[in-house]
Amino acid sequence: MAEVNYVRGLAGVVADESRICTIDGVKGELYYYGYPIQVLAEKSSFMEISFLLLNGKLPANRQELASFEKELSSHREIPGFVESIIKAFPKEAHPMSSLQAVVATMGMQEPESLNDTLEGNRTRAIRLTAMFPTLVAYIHRHRMGQEFIRPRQDLSHAANFLYMLNGQVPSAQIEKMFDICLILHAEHTFNASTFAGRVIGSTLANLYASVSGAVGALFGPLHGGANEMALEMVKSIGSVEKADPWFADTVSKKKKIMGMGHRVYKTIDPRAKIIRRMLEELAHQKGETTGLKILDRLAELMRKKLEGTGKEIWPNVDFYSGSLYTLMGIDSINFTPIFAISRITGWSAHILELWSDNRLYRPKAQYVGEKDLPFLPIDAR
Amino acid sequence: MAEVNYVRGLAGVVADESRICTIDGVKGELYYYGYPIQVLAEKSSFMEISFLLLNGKLPANRQELASFEKELSSHREIPGFVESIIKAFPKEAHPMSSLQAVVATMGMQEPESLNDTLEGNRTRAIRLTAMFPTLVAYIHRHRMGQEFIRPRQDLSHAANFLYMLNGQVPSAQIEKMFDICLILHAEHTFNASTFAGRVIGSTLANLYASVSGAVGALFGPLHGGANEMALEMVKSIGSVEKADPWFADTVSKKKKIMGMGHRVYKTIDPRAKIIRRMLEELAHQKGETTGLKILDRLAELMRKKLEGTGKEIWPNVDFYSGSLYTLMGIDSINFTPIFAISRITGWSAHILELWSDNRLYRPKAQYVGEKDLPFLPIDAR
Repeated sequence: MAEVNYVRGLAGVVADESRICTIDGVKGELYYYGYPIQVLAEKSSFMEISFLLLNGKLPANRQELASFEKELSSHREIPGFVESIIKAFPKEAHPMSSLQAVVATMGMQEPESLNDTLEGNRTRAIRLTAMFPTLVAYIHRHRMGQEFIRPRQDLSHAANFLYMLNGQVPSAQIEKMFDICLILHAEHTFNASTFAGRVIGSTLANLYASVSGAVGALFGPLHGGANEMALEMVKSIGSVEKADPWFADTVSKKKKIMGMGHRVYKTIDPRAKIIRRMLEELAHQKGETTGLKILDRLAELMRKKLEGTGKEIWPNVDFYSGSLYTLMGIDSINFTPIFAISRITGWSAHILELWSDNRLYRPKAQYVGEKDLPFLPIDAR
Repeated sequence: MAEVNYVRGLAGVVADESRICTIDGVKGELYYYGYPIQVLAEKSSFMEISFLLLNGKLPANRQELASFEKELSSHREIPGFVESIIKAFPKEAHPMSSLQAVVATMGMQEPESLNDTLEGNRTRAIRLTAMFPTLVAYIHRHRMGQEFIRPRQDLSHAANFLYMLNGQVPSAQIEKMFDICLILHAEHTFNASTFAGRVIGSTLANLYASVSGAVGALFGPLHGGANEMALEMVKSIGSVEKADPWFADTVSKKKKIMGMGHRVYKTIDPRAKIIRRMLEELAHQKGETTGLKILDRLAELMRKKLEGTGKEIWPNVDFYSGSLYTLMGIDSINFTPIFAISRITGWSAHILELWSDNRLYRPKAQYVGEKDLPFLPIDAR
């Protein structure tokens, strides 16, 4: 067998250039088109971030943002045949299977989607960003055996989604917090779902085929789903007194602590800091602080354990978000679909960037099998 | 901007080891698990190839093959809800969109599909191989406004598909030729659709999510679809007399000749040779030889043009297959779905191989954008 240098999983291998997103792991900063996430979370909105990711620049003024928001929100209704397809799904379907399937159907009445301009596809990405909350809410309500709640034009992107999901218009506080969560999950460079979307897009398959594949990758427990597992961990620990023995036991068994550690960040994930702050506010307000206390204790135990070792393992974005969504009244099965409602903007940005100068992704396999085996007729084997 | 060595599209970059398939570009040979394709096409059957790809070895004897074939053919019927979903698709939907969407739905009644053993997933791959012809035939008939034709247990995999597609049991000759076409398209190492399937599978998303993404990539005109374009080329040339001026014109405009050339083969694609032989047989039998004559003339003109230059451009698998399928009575829009009916075995083999020792595919992007841009409030821009 020939010796070949390569890295399994392409870890650290550069697959392409990109100007969309970068991470400074040492400073603990994440940038969307050059703007630091902490500033964006504080001063921007998910609509402005969607504009930024889909256009590569911030809106020039309030009017440009308003007209983008108006265009986007006018596309919240989904085609009638897509509603029928959702209704044909078995109730027990995982919502990520449903989302992957319906996204693939979205372009069925658009033959031009296979061979359109960048501008045509940018419009398509705006429509997908508008429709993802409707798709996720309808899939949820179908699963629960409930009637669909149609989108309302007078509500913001965040408020309208929560309204379509649960039938209640959220408070201004929850609306704002949810909007910030959407900002925080919108983009994170070449993660597996974005890369899957780029690989499919690189064949010049249409935007729907590419995004559908990205949804499929996000469905994987190694990618989306970590916040759901972090919440399960908190629930199974149950009380802050049990955090210490649970931690000791987990560490002694060399098991992973869900929502901690990251390939790139060498300090706390900036998104985790922001989500923790919101979780703290809401937990105290609702008098439901057990989850937060357990999480804080786990983070402290990890810090103490590693003190002086030079090694650092910090909470990442998934550590706190499941507990925050739970306080917002969102079922854990919807955490990954909500991730998709936000990440559709990042996926679209990447596919549009690729298509501005496309190149097929086609790596090599290192062959380690047999060669020139004799084929014996079956009766002679 | 930092200087970084990398290859756009990962061309020539090794992404993983594999023992499934290799190509000898100089000899013009393709191997499935070590067996040369020319021998397999001559002496084997698509059922035996499916066994080989899904199990990593040939069936040990006739009985093992027969029981595999029996198991596989028992799964030709698709779930009722999947039929309803196909019926909800708009008639104008491209069949590859439909196939991508329905594959994502196939696991909706299998919650265990997210976290199953290799053996469980091998069984799933066998079922998918069995159901792909039914899915493609039903999608076709729905598009044409025709009733579905249910699978027949007394027909072979190839004959049953053609029967479900057109309502006619094919002749033994066509059945055999179609079976050989399925053998020839079953596997071709890390092409874009297989790689997309591996990327999605590497997140531990289920087999359906991964294969659905692979179908999405095959939908892309840079991947599947080349044989359709080669057929269009033959049709637009129209007669063998027009081949010479068409060739001269195309070459002078530096345009690509569809179905010629390949990144890996430095001689004729072994699959092209086999398909040409079948096309010759059927064309003479039917007295429809124009297409074949045009293709032969184009190949000859290319050979003459490059004589003495050291460069060689040979017909690949897509050069002749569209013309052969046409003589079999298959519409060109179904060429890529037929490719999928065969390639489902290769995709499954790759995803099973990956899962035997999984590693997330997660390359890096080379960041070439701005950093630390000041965020001005919108009214101050």
